[in-house]
Amino acid sequence: MENQDETRGGRGRGRRGAVPPMANVNTAYVRMRNPFAPQQAFSADQVAAMHDGALRVLEELGIKVLLDEARDLFRKAGALVDEDSQMVRIGREIVTAALTTAPRSIRLRAANPAREQVYELGSMLFMAGAGCPNAFDNERGRRPGDLTGYLETLRLQQSFDVIHMHGPSVEPQDVPIHLRHYAMMKGQLENCDKPLFVYARGRQQVEESFEMIRLARGLDDAGFRDGVWATTVINSNSPRQLDLPMSRGIIDFARAGQMTIITPFCLAGAMAPITISGALMLQHAEALAGITLAQITQAGAPVSYGGFLSNVDMKSGSPAFGTPEHIRACIGSGQLARHIGLPWRSATGAASNVADSQAASETIMALWGAVLGGATVTVHSAGWLEGGLTLGYEKFILDIENLQTIAELATPAPADAAALGFDAIADVQPGGHFFSTAHTMERYQTAFYRPLVADLSNHGSWVEAGSLTAAQRATAIWKQKLADFVAPETCAGVADRLDAFVQQASESGGAKPED
Amino acid sequence: MENQDETRGGRGRGRRGAVPPMANVNTAYVRMRNPFAPQQAFSADQVAAMHDGALRVLEELGIKVLLDEARDLFRKAGALVDEDSQMVRIGREIVTAALTTAPRSIRLRAANPAREQVYELGSMLFMAGAGCPNAFDNERGRRPGDLTGYLETLRLQQSFDVIHMHGPSVEPQDVPIHLRHYAMMKGQLENCDKPLFVYARGRQQVEESFEMIRLARGLDDAGFRDGVWATTVINSNSPRQLDLPMSRGIIDFARAGQMTIITPFCLAGAMAPITISGALMLQHAEALAGITLAQITQAGAPVSYGGFLSNVDMKSGSPAFGTPEHIRACIGSGQLARHIGLPWRSATGAASNVADSQAASETIMALWGAVLGGATVTVHSAGWLEGGLTLGYEKFILDIENLQTIAELATPAPADAAALGFDAIADVQPGGHFFSTAHTMERYQTAFYRPLVADLSNHGSWVEAGSLTAAQRATAIWKQKLADFVAPETCAGVADRLDAFVQQASESGGAKPED
Repeated sequence: MENQDETRGGRGRGRRGAVPPMANVNTAYVRMRNPFAPQQAFSADQVAAMHDGALRVLEELGIKVLLDEARDLFRKAGALVDEDSQMVRIGREIVTAALTTAPRSIRLRAANPAREQVYELGSMLFMAGAGCPNAFDNERGRRPGDLTGYLETLRLQQSFDVIHMHGPSVEPQDVPIHLRHYAMMKGQLENCDKPLFVYARGRQQVEESFEMIRLARGLDDAGFRDGVWATTVINSNSPRQLDLPMSRGIIDFARAGQMTIITPFCLAGAMAPITISGALMLQHAEALAGITLAQITQAGAPVSYGGFLSNVDMKSGSPAFGTPEHIRACIGSGQLARHIGLPWRSATGAASNVADSQAASETIMALWGAVLGGATVTVHSAGWLEGGLTLGYEKFILDIENLQTIAELATPAPADAAALGFDAIADVQPGGHFFSTAHTMERYQTAFYRPLVADLSNHGSWVEAGSLTAAQRATAIWKQKLADFVAPETCAGVADRLDAFVQQASESGGAKPED
Repeated sequence: MENQDETRGGRGRGRRGAVPPMANVNTAYVRMRNPFAPQQAFSADQVAAMHDGALRVLEELGIKVLLDEARDLFRKAGALVDEDSQMVRIGREIVTAALTTAPRSIRLRAANPAREQVYELGSMLFMAGAGCPNAFDNERGRRPGDLTGYLETLRLQQSFDVIHMHGPSVEPQDVPIHLRHYAMMKGQLENCDKPLFVYARGRQQVEESFEMIRLARGLDDAGFRDGVWATTVINSNSPRQLDLPMSRGIIDFARAGQMTIITPFCLAGAMAPITISGALMLQHAEALAGITLAQITQAGAPVSYGGFLSNVDMKSGSPAFGTPEHIRACIGSGQLARHIGLPWRSATGAASNVADSQAASETIMALWGAVLGGATVTVHSAGWLEGGLTLGYEKFILDIENLQTIAELATPAPADAAALGFDAIADVQPGGHFFSTAHTMERYQTAFYRPLVADLSNHGSWVEAGSLTAAQRATAIWKQKLADFVAPETCAGVADRLDAFVQQASESGGAKPED
């Protein structure tokens, strides 16, 4: 339709090597701010109605809390507790008070001070896909998650600056469950220098994980409480239920001054109302209940609002990602988070079974939903396949490209007189080109984002090179990153500082996860 | 990382058939409004500086205009013309006057009145990938574009409501160039009922194309001028040049009251400054020159601002799509269009050679750039591969899914008391599910967007079904659409009304494209 320039892919096409190869651009995407204005999926009145409806749900219907200790805390705070049904009805004045003590801005500590983050509205952080029971890559195929996969994916997280917080991408199922937390903490502490993740799988595991952080980082109790060294995600059991490990995790992390991300996992049409607005109202009620438990445990405890709301696929019953409903839910969750003034967590992901076009669409559409919803952190933003059942190594690399594309936009582009380049335009005659102008030569090395895996060569060159898809090219990239991996300097000596503790704890029976 | 619900893909996963199959959702995406607030890549001052700099470019440096008739029109309008160099320097008062006569809202006519569109800021229209010299599908492979491919892709455009304006996706290279416009117009007029596209490839071709529209639609001259029946895209030859067919097209369409979309194709670092701000300033100058030519030809002529600005890939010299620079350029172009108050055209696309994850990333990232830039129409939004060298049938289907995802968001979701569903939440006990609630049963058939090609089945079912990628599944979809295709009722009798004209015009030698 266009003239020959556009339809032929531009005169530039084929000018291979017309410009000197570009050097690496700086990709230290630290403490990024979201460059986009938050969007609105619902009116201010509708958001207020969702918030009020959520308060009604907690006040009139209540939430089932399985942990005795948590119900005691709610009772002491003035909630109405029915021990037979374990139902807790929380008056809105209790919730409102909790929202006044929840911090608006949280310092996330890291072994490397340069990796510290400020967790608040306006920040833009990314976490890799996490919690996957399986792993997949083009060379080894699909397999149950093991310690090798857990460590490899941690090192991939560490290898890309655009991943800001660590998480367990692959579950090391070959490590016995009563010893697994030792291996998982050792893996993070010996290989990573970004903010850490600790599973809330029981009191003893949590306390031992905290102790390993103190040992590895050389912290006394005051140092450990100075900012947040450990973060966990708490999922309520929608609808309206807080189970034992989740309730206990909120309490244990609050007492230790560490961060919980309260994330109801509401599937519209399954565990939540089929309408996005109704599912958001339920999500909001459950998140407020968890935030309240944290604050009545310890006023000022670092806590994050969380939303992971999508629709169920009516055909397969699976959770859908990147659908219009998912995007709308992300934007609506952001409106609710801003309504209560708290930082919040969103998520992307993919239901696809393979790192194909569908997987890219699902992940990128949901990523934009999270970014346009002003999410403080977007979880599962690299590598998720099968709705989280599998962590794909190639998918991880492909997603990093998308995250880096968004991250580049966090830095404004120059538009001063020098950048506008009136003189350069004057120098180039009509129909000429800018390749050799001083304006170009001064800037070409850092002017553009340099693709990680995208291949823009023409069809002939692409065929000559083997007609590889992006997912096929990604294999060489993760292999190279793992081959080149060197643990950060700040991890030196960590193994020695941990071994005695881990050996003794293991010999004394370890710590089983609690239900 | 999450609890078992989330990491296992949700309890919903595996509930195959727990909910009755969903009926088709209405997908008549007509006269959509953009639901997103336009974003800003540059400050208001910077946008004003780009606009002022563009006026300086036209006033002090000028633009080379190859067509004598166009230079005459500029001279009569008061521009300074140097016949030796063919350079035209346009005073800002001439440009400013043109911007006052350019219409803000344009009625796009269609054979089917329900397909009419209002072309203005705030509207959100999509056009398929266009102008491709080659075609590709999984069954026939990559091949030079021919009439069969041209007609098949027109029928695919007609088959999806989310494509709002027609364009020549595939160039019918097997039709002699002096007869090609007859075949292309017949194809549109006999198979399509949406707003039409006419190539500006010379005066006689344009006039004959307009005549075929009048004959097919039974329009007299007044009826043809009542709104816009034909649209074309004008690409300036960056930097600072308007060639013969482009200049002539602007004049011919303006005189006939038909719409030109003035679209400089500026590749930052190649035919434009390497900075996005500088490339935008050049784009703006060239677009203003074309808009001015249209208005001095015929005040009030329907004309659209256009931007197709991305960066050149420094490694291959190819145009890049969906890069941070491309997204920034889309948003910046929207700011410039709103600065002058005119509707505008953006574009997406892909450089990838195959419908893989890269192709999806490139197209979706650029699509969001266009949507967040408030583009009135986004061109090349389905099917483009190889930077426009090839139209991919499977890529077309995969992109339709993305366009429908965006289109669904143009309709607000219900959030009244009934939608919030407090009573439904009250009916479902903690830990229960909403599958069988009245609230769900009343809504499940139309609650969610129904995927076109996405497959959310679990890994086992997916393997049983042949482990097909989305691109492989897309083949069956376009084949079915073509098999089911029936020309719209409004096209009945069109062939009879055109044949005599086409036969006579062909016998009298047809009409060669003009340079």
